[in-house]
Amino acid sequence: MISANASHSLDTLLARRAFEFDHANPILADLPKETSETISLAYGDADPRLFPIKELISSVDGLLSEKRDAVLNYAPVDRELTELVARRLQKRGVVVDEQNILITYGSSQILGLLPQIMLNQGDVVIVEGPTFLGAIEYFVTQGATIETIPVGDHGMDIDALADTLQRLAAHGKQAKFIYTIPTHHNPTGTMMPLANRKRLLSLAATYGVLVLEDDAYGDLDFRGEMAASLLTLPGSEWVLHIGTFSKILAPGVRMAWAYGPTPVMQRLRKFQSDQGAGPFITRLVSYIAKDGWLEQHINVLNSAYAYKYATMRDAMAQHFPQDVRVSTPSGGFFVYGYLPLDMPARALIDVAIAHGVSFLPGTVGYANGGGTHEMRLAFSFQSEAHIVEGITRLGEAMRVHRAQG
Amino acid sequence: MISANASHSLDTLLARRAFEFDHANPILADLPKETSETISLAYGDADPRLFPIKELISSVDGLLSEKRDAVLNYAPVDRELTELVARRLQKRGVVVDEQNILITYGSSQILGLLPQIMLNQGDVVIVEGPTFLGAIEYFVTQGATIETIPVGDHGMDIDALADTLQRLAAHGKQAKFIYTIPTHHNPTGTMMPLANRKRLLSLAATYGVLVLEDDAYGDLDFRGEMAASLLTLPGSEWVLHIGTFSKILAPGVRMAWAYGPTPVMQRLRKFQSDQGAGPFITRLVSYIAKDGWLEQHINVLNSAYAYKYATMRDAMAQHFPQDVRVSTPSGGFFVYGYLPLDMPARALIDVAIAHGVSFLPGTVGYANGGGTHEMRLAFSFQSEAHIVEGITRLGEAMRVHRAQG
Repeated sequence: MISANASHSLDTLLARRAFEFDHANPILADLPKETSETISLAYGDADPRLFPIKELISSVDGLLSEKRDAVLNYAPVDRELTELVARRLQKRGVVVDEQNILITYGSSQILGLLPQIMLNQGDVVIVEGPTFLGAIEYFVTQGATIETIPVGDHGMDIDALADTLQRLAAHGKQAKFIYTIPTHHNPTGTMMPLANRKRLLSLAATYGVLVLEDDAYGDLDFRGEMAASLLTLPGSEWVLHIGTFSKILAPGVRMAWAYGPTPVMQRLRKFQSDQGAGPFITRLVSYIAKDGWLEQHINVLNSAYAYKYATMRDAMAQHFPQDVRVSTPSGGFFVYGYLPLDMPARALIDVAIAHGVSFLPGTVGYANGGGTHEMRLAFSFQSEAHIVEGITRLGEAMRVHRAQG
Repeated sequence: MISANASHSLDTLLARRAFEFDHANPILADLPKETSETISLAYGDADPRLFPIKELISSVDGLLSEKRDAVLNYAPVDRELTELVARRLQKRGVVVDEQNILITYGSSQILGLLPQIMLNQGDVVIVEGPTFLGAIEYFVTQGATIETIPVGDHGMDIDALADTLQRLAAHGKQAKFIYTIPTHHNPTGTMMPLANRKRLLSLAATYGVLVLEDDAYGDLDFRGEMAASLLTLPGSEWVLHIGTFSKILAPGVRMAWAYGPTPVMQRLRKFQSDQGAGPFITRLVSYIAKDGWLEQHINVLNSAYAYKYATMRDAMAQHFPQDVRVSTPSGGFFVYGYLPLDMPARALIDVAIAHGVSFLPGTVGYANGGGTHEMRLAFSFQSEAHIVEGITRLGEAMRVHRAQG
């Protein structure tokens, strides 16, 4: 019997998982702070000069004048937005069942929900190293044991994946899902070749593992080409695909979509307590996207981001020491750098900040402590002038760091 | 060892909780469908004639012109919105620590998150009967065992609550939280008196149970009076308070807030994978609310909803049989009806739909099968003319049902 007079503490009321999450690694908190003088190349924000301000304002005007009640009251998920997502998937060759489309508050909502419906305590989740660190936190929150597969110049190392799956099976363990960003990878900017995509799905089917394809940068190809989504390849029944309006419209609208197998989508829908992004914002996105406007806007973005990448590439060639190797993305928001042994990223970032520039140390993308000599540079946010100045400062910081070493 | 050649099924990949939730009670699916001819009094939608369309359009214009980047890019939670919530709580007498305010995607996000951080499988959650059924689903999803406390003319029956807490303690069980809507209760429209609020908190402190105060209708008082939030009473350290912009601005913006004890708020923040409502929509709300506009707007709403309630009250007095008893709300969106023994709500709803009107059967608000002779009527959505016509039709349906019986 519990005494009614015992002194009580709120902590005794919390679930076990609340405490487990307290131990999540605060890697970002450990980084030196940017100042107002810093040219930040650290974060993958969109370029605000490319936001469609006029179109957003006129869309809100049109939308609220035309459909007040559906936009501002409680309402089911916007059918037009679901149809827009269906059409865009169909254009890429996916045979779409609209019932399996889920509209979400940004990709992060799915990254939070999926582990809830798939993971029991200790279940294995396979991720790339490096990867989008935010994702790992969501998986660990729900009790995941993380296995890391290295990423090379062609995305995830599929041989290493095969070895890991075999090793897990030999120990009687089954991975629940594999999280991958096959197209314009975050943070490395690499692209998984078609043959590797096929092998990935073949392994998923053989071992019975779901593949979570994060296609955040799928539309952002410098030449406007679309890589084959895993949804279009043999074994696609093992694929949960997520895409987002963050990069092609604006991150601030916080809207994304997921498409995958019925048993998974049904449960995701049930666990989505807020029923997906709200009526106002979903209808705003489908309203502005109509009549092909979104596809034209994506063309504009691709030209602009291609030019910004070229600006960063040329500046790096001019200002970085020869032994700093950088990736050669064909889309997305990021260049990845591999630093020489005498230039650990954690030490370099302090010098960089002192020189008025920042980057994201590679360690932030690893669940297993890797990436000590790696760095992510975003060309997405800064203006071309700031990209050139930022890379110039960073090259200087590298030389100063080396001279001090 | 798991054979690599075994035939695999996606179902084997899902977590236990995914299957538990499959058994959630589909009460709403069992109801007859409304048609385009139905005057629906079932749902608590806001009155679209009261939406501030012009102000929303001009706010979007001003906001996107003034603060493009903060509004459309990735951004931390809107400080101005947090300050707005803080000011509104302070005005009610709460001593506010801004760090303990969380902005969320509608109240439903909190109702989904709280059980995640508080419940281990089988933990007890105490709810009112009837209550907002959506809430129960979120609790059950995370493994809650539900205990129901009756609601009378003065809200939750505090004697029954005391008995339940004592019984649980005698069996060595501790309830994790008590979910209550003390002000303009959904669905009954009742108000918990101050003395009962104080007893509720005294019991919470004695037994060490969190109280989840859902204050969705707190601002909507016909005379513009605010009841004492549980946050302002002795024992407030056991209170998690949630409020929403759904009723005072527009449900479609999907925005709400939570305020409570640090250990709870810290964990809620960590588990909120999407970081709360997006930059665009949060900044739109704080922009439109500034300079006292929101408080003026709430005054307008209260006058309008008071008038709509009076319209429904008078129509019920004229058209309902004498032995149908109805609640007398002083705010909120709902009237609750208690039906005679020969008039079960589930049978009446079929006749009502045939007469072109609908209501919500009381059973929808009970986790324990109660409410068979109860009904909820919303005066919030329909125009005054439709309220009169709907109540006229419902009175006719009651007489027809009785004549058929």
